[in-house]
Amino acid sequence: MEQQNFMLGIVGFGGMGNWHRELIDSIDGLKVAGIYDIKESRINYAKENGIKAYESLEELLSDDRIDIVLVSTPNDLHKPIAIKAMKAGKNVVSEKPVTLNSKDLQEMIDASEETGMFFTVHQNRRWDEDFLTMKKIYEEHRLGEVFRIESRVHGSRGIPGDWRQEKEHGGGMVLDWGVHLLDQILLMMGDTKLNTVYATETHITNQLVDDGFTAELRFENGVEVLVEVGTSNFINLPRWYMLGNNGTAIIEDWELNGKIVSAAGKNETDVIPVRTAAGLTKTMAPRREDTIKIQELPIVKSDIRDFYRNVMKVIGEKEEPKIKLPEVKRVMKLMEVIFESAESHTVVRFE
Amino acid sequence: MEQQNFMLGIVGFGGMGNWHRELIDSIDGLKVAGIYDIKESRINYAKENGIKAYESLEELLSDDRIDIVLVSTPNDLHKPIAIKAMKAGKNVVSEKPVTLNSKDLQEMIDASEETGMFFTVHQNRRWDEDFLTMKKIYEEHRLGEVFRIESRVHGSRGIPGDWRQEKEHGGGMVLDWGVHLLDQILLMMGDTKLNTVYATETHITNQLVDDGFTAELRFENGVEVLVEVGTSNFINLPRWYMLGNNGTAIIEDWELNGKIVSAAGKNETDVIPVRTAAGLTKTMAPRREDTIKIQELPIVKSDIRDFYRNVMKVIGEKEEPKIKLPEVKRVMKLMEVIFESAESHTVVRFE
Repeated sequence: MEQQNFMLGIVGFGGMGNWHRELIDSIDGLKVAGIYDIKESRINYAKENGIKAYESLEELLSDDRIDIVLVSTPNDLHKPIAIKAMKAGKNVVSEKPVTLNSKDLQEMIDASEETGMFFTVHQNRRWDEDFLTMKKIYEEHRLGEVFRIESRVHGSRGIPGDWRQEKEHGGGMVLDWGVHLLDQILLMMGDTKLNTVYATETHITNQLVDDGFTAELRFENGVEVLVEVGTSNFINLPRWYMLGNNGTAIIEDWELNGKIVSAAGKNETDVIPVRTAAGLTKTMAPRREDTIKIQELPIVKSDIRDFYRNVMKVIGEKEEPKIKLPEVKRVMKLMEVIFESAESHTVVRFE
Repeated sequence: MEQQNFMLGIVGFGGMGNWHRELIDSIDGLKVAGIYDIKESRINYAKENGIKAYESLEELLSDDRIDIVLVSTPNDLHKPIAIKAMKAGKNVVSEKPVTLNSKDLQEMIDASEETGMFFTVHQNRRWDEDFLTMKKIYEEHRLGEVFRIESRVHGSRGIPGDWRQEKEHGGGMVLDWGVHLLDQILLMMGDTKLNTVYATETHITNQLVDDGFTAELRFENGVEVLVEVGTSNFINLPRWYMLGNNGTAIIEDWELNGKIVSAAGKNETDVIPVRTAAGLTKTMAPRREDTIKIQELPIVKSDIRDFYRNVMKVIGEKEEPKIKLPEVKRVMKLMEVIFESAESHTVVRFE
């Protein structure tokens, strides 16, 4: 079978643009045609690495060899560039968050429908192995019936010091990390409706955009989910924590340290209470080791290159897109509801 | 100086009643006069240990030697017994939760005012060293300005199998453990008003009463507090987690393992990003060790016998009560608001 070769142009050659370039170098059938950036330093960096730098966005878009345009600019520029690219006959991959609100996203979806060009969003963290592992645990009922999920990322450097500190460019942690964590949770919960949202946001190192948030999501099936991002956390809480009626799963960190602990089906009749300075408790005393079962996590491996492999197959009309626009729009609407809840200090109905 | 001797009668000689008896044996100036219980096994246990067992509540209350009555019965019986005891001229210590609702508590407060007898509640976990240590960290601004506090207790045995499983006896984890954790937080926050509450409750092993809950408390000074109790948690999250703009404090467990990590005032200019299967992040990358400072917790020691020492001094009109009834009532009202929020899935205004 003949291998079709796809060419991709990168608009916006910052940290993520370069991450894509390195990734694409390792994917059969896909090549970077060149980049466009407004910053001299990035143009020079491209040239030094033997990458073509277009003089203008127009020049890049008029290069007939290019099938796909990757938009990896600041967030507020995704929309105008993506629409322009689709109108120039290019398929488009946008970095996340795709836009600053769901209305803007709808304009991009409309442009895709009008032009017939494929348009998708780089929700890369659907391929993160911590997420895929917890999704497997959830779907295979390894903890019995799950009733609570906690998904957190914690850092202690505040937010990055560039455009990500400004609201009009789409800065803030809800849009930056929330977009991943919320997308993961909605994917994990499948068709289950998300009824209500209660959110708080922090402004510890930045007043203009949120530098962290918490969102308590209540799903129709009774599962409660806490999604949390913090950038002033000098000690991290676990990346994942999932509670089922028969066991608990934890992923501590990015290295996927963690375990599953569940009941071994043996009753404890002789619980030794914990004695603290001021009281005693049997209810909260640790379990005796022979009454619990400790298991390794069922680690799921992934290959992020499958993102672009899927993009190529969708363009070749051989596959459905892995990242569907209604899913992206649902996450965008959820982020709007999180802002609304955090500002109004109320519970907001979602679905 | 002459040592005044106080005599105490215990009504309800279960686990907590016996805990008090053992405690009182080590307090100068206080003696157990005897106990009253409806269960044969407990009466026998008392007799075997050389403790007088009264035939009836009336007999205990008519013993002129008794200054103080401890009520350590199931929760729904605190009120009638405490009121009866005060009317019989006894000072009263009630176990927690003092009643099932704030209306009942007001009747007990009224009885205290009418009879002139001292009435207080055994909020013993005010003396827990984990709490006192976190309170010190908060009050001494050791983390800079605190913006979030998380207080959790986790167990994996469900709730105890006795009257604590029934609503009408005051069962459930909000009343059992919530009463401690909420009291601690209100004490830590001092005069700061608590504006709003958002709560959820779980019914994993019990349908009649909550077997766990979460409560997000938003205080007037902007501090957000999460109070959480779980009884189906096979892996525990830390007992305490406190975030300030300059550092984080953690207490892992009942043994007070923990630390304070704060910024060392040194910037990181060369952050090494974390690479996961699907992406990279500088924002959430761990700190280089020379940019943080790790400190031991400033452990605060306590002596729970100070509870009874204070009770004796209050009766002798030498001290203010350490546990004041308006504080107890505020916690009781807060628990009512938690039930309201969890049932209605709304944010409820508190103060």
